[in-house]
Amino acid sequence: MKYVYHFGNGQAEGQGDMKDLLGGKGAGLAEMTRIGLPVPAGFTITTEACDHFYKHDKKYPESLKAEVAEHLSRLEKETGKKLGDPKDPLLVSVRSGSARSMPGMMETILNLGLNSKSVEALAKRTSNDRFAYDAYRRFVQMYSTVVIGLPKEELEDRLRNLKNYLKVKDDTQVSADGWRQLVNEYKAHFKQKTGHDFPEDPQEQLWGAIGAVFGSWMAEKAQTYRRVEKITGLLGTAVNVVQMVFGNRGENSGTGVCFTRDPSTGEKVFFGEFLINAQGEDVVAGIRTPMPLSDMAQRMPEVYHQLEEVRVKLENHYRDMQDMEFTVEDGKLYMLQTRTGKRSPGATFVMAVDFANEGLIDRNEAINRIKSEDVERLFYPVLDPSVKKSDLDARKLANGINAVPGAAVGKAVFTAEEAEDWAARGEKVILVRRETSPEDVGGMFVAQGILTATGGKTSHAAVVARGWGKCCVVGAESLDIDATTKRMRANGRVINKGDWLTLDGNEGAVYAGETRLVRPDPPKAFNALMEWADEIRKLRVRTNADTPHDARKARSFGAEGIGLCRTEHMFFKDFEQPEKSADRQLAIQEMILADTKEARLKALAKLLPFQRRDFIGIFEAMESLPVTIRLVDPPLHEFLPHERTKQEELAKKIGVEVEVVIRRVEQLHEANPMLGHRGCRLAITYPEILEMQVRAIIEAAIDCKRRGVKVLPEIMIPLVLDKKELQILDTATRKVAEEIIAASKVKLEYLVGTMIELPRAALLADEIAEVAEFFSFGTNDLTQTVMGLSRDDAGRFLPDYVDEKKAAIFHDDPFQTLDQAGVGMLMEWAIYKGRSTRPKLKIGICGEHGGDAESVKFCHRVGMDYVSASPFRVPIARLAAAQAVLEAKAPPKKSARPRKPKAAKAKGASS
Amino acid sequence: MKYVYHFGNGQAEGQGDMKDLLGGKGAGLAEMTRIGLPVPAGFTITTEACDHFYKHDKKYPESLKAEVAEHLSRLEKETGKKLGDPKDPLLVSVRSGSARSMPGMMETILNLGLNSKSVEALAKRTSNDRFAYDAYRRFVQMYSTVVIGLPKEELEDRLRNLKNYLKVKDDTQVSADGWRQLVNEYKAHFKQKTGHDFPEDPQEQLWGAIGAVFGSWMAEKAQTYRRVEKITGLLGTAVNVVQMVFGNRGENSGTGVCFTRDPSTGEKVFFGEFLINAQGEDVVAGIRTPMPLSDMAQRMPEVYHQLEEVRVKLENHYRDMQDMEFTVEDGKLYMLQTRTGKRSPGATFVMAVDFANEGLIDRNEAINRIKSEDVERLFYPVLDPSVKKSDLDARKLANGINAVPGAAVGKAVFTAEEAEDWAARGEKVILVRRETSPEDVGGMFVAQGILTATGGKTSHAAVVARGWGKCCVVGAESLDIDATTKRMRANGRVINKGDWLTLDGNEGAVYAGETRLVRPDPPKAFNALMEWADEIRKLRVRTNADTPHDARKARSFGAEGIGLCRTEHMFFKDFEQPEKSADRQLAIQEMILADTKEARLKALAKLLPFQRRDFIGIFEAMESLPVTIRLVDPPLHEFLPHERTKQEELAKKIGVEVEVVIRRVEQLHEANPMLGHRGCRLAITYPEILEMQVRAIIEAAIDCKRRGVKVLPEIMIPLVLDKKELQILDTATRKVAEEIIAASKVKLEYLVGTMIELPRAALLADEIAEVAEFFSFGTNDLTQTVMGLSRDDAGRFLPDYVDEKKAAIFHDDPFQTLDQAGVGMLMEWAIYKGRSTRPKLKIGICGEHGGDAESVKFCHRVGMDYVSASPFRVPIARLAAAQAVLEAKAPPKKSARPRKPKAAKAKGASS
Repeated sequence: MKYVYHFGNGQAEGQGDMKDLLGGKGAGLAEMTRIGLPVPAGFTITTEACDHFYKHDKKYPESLKAEVAEHLSRLEKETGKKLGDPKDPLLVSVRSGSARSMPGMMETILNLGLNSKSVEALAKRTSNDRFAYDAYRRFVQMYSTVVIGLPKEELEDRLRNLKNYLKVKDDTQVSADGWRQLVNEYKAHFKQKTGHDFPEDPQEQLWGAIGAVFGSWMAEKAQTYRRVEKITGLLGTAVNVVQMVFGNRGENSGTGVCFTRDPSTGEKVFFGEFLINAQGEDVVAGIRTPMPLSDMAQRMPEVYHQLEEVRVKLENHYRDMQDMEFTVEDGKLYMLQTRTGKRSPGATFVMAVDFANEGLIDRNEAINRIKSEDVERLFYPVLDPSVKKSDLDARKLANGINAVPGAAVGKAVFTAEEAEDWAARGEKVILVRRETSPEDVGGMFVAQGILTATGGKTSHAAVVARGWGKCCVVGAESLDIDATTKRMRANGRVINKGDWLTLDGNEGAVYAGETRLVRPDPPKAFNALMEWADEIRKLRVRTNADTPHDARKARSFGAEGIGLCRTEHMFFKDFEQPEKSADRQLAIQEMILADTKEARLKALAKLLPFQRRDFIGIFEAMESLPVTIRLVDPPLHEFLPHERTKQEELAKKIGVEVEVVIRRVEQLHEANPMLGHRGCRLAITYPEILEMQVRAIIEAAIDCKRRGVKVLPEIMIPLVLDKKELQILDTATRKVAEEIIAASKVKLEYLVGTMIELPRAALLADEIAEVAEFFSFGTNDLTQTVMGLSRDDAGRFLPDYVDEKKAAIFHDDPFQTLDQAGVGMLMEWAIYKGRSTRPKLKIGICGEHGGDAESVKFCHRVGMDYVSASPFRVPIARLAAAQAVLEAKAPPKKSARPRKPKAAKAKGASS
Repeated sequence: MKYVYHFGNGQAEGQGDMKDLLGGKGAGLAEMTRIGLPVPAGFTITTEACDHFYKHDKKYPESLKAEVAEHLSRLEKETGKKLGDPKDPLLVSVRSGSARSMPGMMETILNLGLNSKSVEALAKRTSNDRFAYDAYRRFVQMYSTVVIGLPKEELEDRLRNLKNYLKVKDDTQVSADGWRQLVNEYKAHFKQKTGHDFPEDPQEQLWGAIGAVFGSWMAEKAQTYRRVEKITGLLGTAVNVVQMVFGNRGENSGTGVCFTRDPSTGEKVFFGEFLINAQGEDVVAGIRTPMPLSDMAQRMPEVYHQLEEVRVKLENHYRDMQDMEFTVEDGKLYMLQTRTGKRSPGATFVMAVDFANEGLIDRNEAINRIKSEDVERLFYPVLDPSVKKSDLDARKLANGINAVPGAAVGKAVFTAEEAEDWAARGEKVILVRRETSPEDVGGMFVAQGILTATGGKTSHAAVVARGWGKCCVVGAESLDIDATTKRMRANGRVINKGDWLTLDGNEGAVYAGETRLVRPDPPKAFNALMEWADEIRKLRVRTNADTPHDARKARSFGAEGIGLCRTEHMFFKDFEQPEKSADRQLAIQEMILADTKEARLKALAKLLPFQRRDFIGIFEAMESLPVTIRLVDPPLHEFLPHERTKQEELAKKIGVEVEVVIRRVEQLHEANPMLGHRGCRLAITYPEILEMQVRAIIEAAIDCKRRGVKVLPEIMIPLVLDKKELQILDTATRKVAEEIIAASKVKLEYLVGTMIELPRAALLADEIAEVAEFFSFGTNDLTQTVMGLSRDDAGRFLPDYVDEKKAAIFHDDPFQTLDQAGVGMLMEWAIYKGRSTRPKLKIGICGEHGGDAESVKFCHRVGMDYVSASPFRVPIARLAAAQAVLEAKAPPKKSARPRKPKAAKAKGASS
């Protein structure tokens, strides 16, 4: 087993695609060396050595000592210097570097090799005492804290005391003698704390540093970072031992960071910052303001020109925007790191399209480079980045779960009614609830953002808000909300009704007060890329939309129809004429409270014109495209008020005793409403509800057709578990529809199909497909039933299941990304069986997963016809559908592979 | 298509196994004719004609008229009489008769063929005016009400007036003239109401009667009866047109009903009743008291002897106890009906065993003749049959759902606590609750019976009670229970705490007051038959038992181990030392309220000795047999009190603020607890609970083994959905177990397995079997998740799904009888996949279905190793397991087929 890889002098044992083994930094250094860029020599100890370390009780592999010694001696030969040499010492940095960037998480030791003798040699050779002792004190400090673990504060106190004593403010004002004195103090402190002298032996220093880097991999903060960022599957960190170069050797030296293109806009300009006479840490410390790269062109034109060449070479080589670190030592350029640069969502699109247009990559690769988060983040308003973090921190009320990204600002209201009232008079509001229910949907609709104290990413609030792309923070458990007194307490503050609130849906944070928001405009490149995706993809992409407004929005995002139009929201909210919402609510509530079928029919007759008008609006918005309408689904209790005062109000309006309302609410209460009297079970019990809805759909469709609006209605029956059940409802549906069509003398085609959202329906899909003209997988409920997991409750324990540290049973929240192993297996079965009896069965998905990239790819692989996503996720689905086609052709690699290293090798050390 | 079948004169076109076509009565008449018994001649119009009638808008098949005419003329030839003949008229009865007995549901017309002329001929030929006009008035009345639909009361008023006028009390005192006068009044009434004369034409009479019989098939009451009795799949009713014979022709005539053996005891004695000079209706009307059959031997020795011969002949022929109707006309015996007789549960066993011992059937057939209801009904106490129905009706409070059969009497109590207090001082109590929860289990245990206002057959109350074989009526919705004031109102009465109540679990009825109960002793034949079943069956039968007491009871019923020992009941109830129950409750509640792991461990340490002692008791009761113990399963909120006063009490005991308890209860509240934080998810979150339980199990097993008690513990992990999840818990389990075993130096074997109760676990059974040593299908939860049906809520709408009239989507309640098409398909998959990775995987079932005969047969067919049933259902499972083996050899027929008709035919008309 080879554990150490050399690079230097134009040659490298490693290469750029060996990130897993050498870490990102090590692979980058090797690759840059190979293609002839100026890189200080050094070697990389592999992540496999780190893995061995942890698997063998923190012991190094047996062969490692010898291998390191061999590579060190090769490094000494190449540099002509020796570690610890009292005349011309080799100094090295020892840096961590894993396959995935974990900024600030792991350790670095610079200037290793200095001791009481070699520091003198360094001073002499550089003719700079101050420089040498500054370097030495930095090394002693890093070694003491990083390797030995002494508290940083104890050392920094001494530096502060020294500066006080010297009466100076900045480190730069400390003289050589000052540093010398500090080194002595540090060493004394070291001896006092450890009982040993500070190590003079560079070998001891080196192995101490290697051990510290390995150790930092399992430090608490690094583990936490990986858990939060869902970084898994890595062996450990590599260790890079690299010859030191110094940017603080004078005015002809410096250090900088640059990007091959502008990471904010994607523009093809060289972008970066540079600091004269400085080391990397000085840039990070932010003591001095760096200059833009353009200024460097003035100050060091030759070096700048060389850097420009590197820029072009690296971007062509990696075929992607690079983020580079460099140091200029005495007029000589050294590249210290290159990696694919992070960029804004907009820049991601601009660069992908530009690269393709420039011929650097092909269009397929451009498509593959976009992640669904890039699309998602493109559209949400965000806190103005110029707002200071300290300002926000001072106003922070709580942390919750970032259910829907973006940001929102508005005045706090504590009931849906207030939200509607306030919004009606032009106020921006944030609706704050312990949890939301369908009753709140009107208030949710008009709010800028939604905040709840309970629930997870798939709670009612989250799902509804996501559908609208509306900023939503849920599960902010530390909020103490009192809906009666209309106030909440959090983090020592009281927020009353009408106080300003700011929600950051990206971070899941809640702030008091008003904050500036900006909504990014998608760049033109976005549309170009989406068109490329559309050319490739096979899956159709529809949308989940319940209102004409949503339908239009989704269509502007490229939706090719509606895959799920939920009809129950219409019972609460008149989205076109909000002032009429109360009429609808009353009618549905009357229907539920009715004792007899006659009374129910009377109430339903009131609802009919509302529903018909809604459907007309939706059909018009989706002209010529299919519209799948789901018959009413939730349990009836959701339509009745649960608060006493509202119950009294309702009783008064309808003219019954309040006890009647209360009793009905109690009657409708269910232990497990998710598995209760809902979906098509309502239509079995109350066929008249189905009849009214079908009438509204068909009459609306005929009305449209008469006016020349092309309609393709698809009536969807939810929660079916048996063929016979579907048969009964299919017959009832067609009876109503055919009567109306026959009377109208308009020719109208429509489909009747079902959701597959119960395991039994999936298992018996062959029988069900004998009746259903289409299937739509309701993967929210299917996930709940296949896994026996309540969406509303899983927040209590599901985190343990996804948490790498606790159980790591699932990689993702199965309500966000489809559980392909379990739920997916059943879906494949249902597709296979369904098409066995109806070969042309149209099959789609309308659960939340229809807007999740991985899940969309699964839908493509198993041969579905379409997916349906909430409006803002339609572009994500379009993109993922295209990527699925590309993946089928060539499965993706873990890390992007640079161009052939052989060609690079040929160039060798020539440049 | 042949629609009419003749019988008479020793020959018959039909035969006994043609019940579906000829109805039970018609098939019996044909068969009796064939084997030479004295049967009046006649013909049967098939059920297919009835089916045609309803499928063609109530029109007869075209060929029917001619066929009936042809058979009528054959009948006239054989009898030598002609319908409507003014000299010697043929009189016939027209009777309904479907394949399944529907007593009293359908129509009969007697004495058809009488008119103003033929009645005179009848009078002359019988020399009995009174007899003839009595027959005529009966016919006119029946025809008017049954065929024409005139209200019976209007006719009976006229009879009453006549008797008043004649100053007589009984019909028998009315003279010939009186009847003649009544006939005239009836006819006048007929004309007034219908505008037509009463039909003189016997053909018109006959077709009117046939139409009326067909019509009665779809009468409201007949439809209701079929729905209630779950009679489905029949074509309709047949119509039997049979020559009239008269038992009321004098002292040498009579009519009777007899059974080939005693239907109450099963004893081989001739059993029946006989009435001299009477017609069948007179027996039914109950005006005169019939004599026992033995008296008939004195009065009509010859006829009696002949009847004895018929008895032997029919029983040998049908190889089962027969229930016969006969008439003696002028010393001549006529058999009018034979059918397999209904019998008591005890008699069912006695006869099956006796028949087998007598060689009439073989043992396999004896086994096949027992239905699970026979076993079930054998063991439950019942209301003393001598209590008058009118007495009960006067005391009726409500009707509910008959969740667990049997009967119970006790004093009403309204909380579980009271139940325990009262029971402790020796009172018999009925626990009355709106619904029960695990908290109530102690009170449920001591109660004689359980009554709830909500829930269905699989509600908590029903399931727990069934496990104990304890009478239980649920869903008595009209009860208005007030647990605060400790009273309930129902049917105008108020029942206070301490008032006597009677529950009839067979009928689902609730009565005020005390009622005598009797508990039937199973006959010896029961044990004999069970032993025969045991010799045949392949499936092992275990029991679901949570206490040593239940375990011992189940063992006495033949249980071969425990398939499900639920550990959560032990947290509430010390079944051996009830006075110590509070200690356990407090410990588990402390555990749940604990803030830290340490505090949880402390509380768990208190529970450990309790659990260990429970397990020791159970292991001892099940010595040498396997015991499967399920780790804690329900959501934690079920262990905390939900009533304010109890919460205050608990807070006080533990020494925390009541708000702490309330907050924890709120925190633990779930929208869908069935799909929530329960089962092994608790062990993922709180591994210490699992550790305590495993410790208790293993320490108990070691304690037993040290004392020479052989134990076979099987630790079962519930609600698993993923291999990794199980792996984590399996590892944790074995770690605890191995440590204890190693320290004890006792050799102990144990298994670790899982329940398969979520679709995902079933789908991925191959992976899960890599870890699990056994599978036990938890079909309660599997049914809930596969079908998306909450057991607790399905009562609202599931009746519609099973109701023939509404939807008839399922044949049975899927929580009682396994849904083989859906849930069963998934189970087969899981068995197949599970054994693909672990070929010797032990597989059982521990849901409620383990005690349901049809489901047990399914378990046999799919190759399970065992089923587990509640103690009282163990014999049902043993029997069903044997029947499954027999069915595999020879699938059962719809109706029992009599011996070869050919042999019978040979005997022809000779006797």
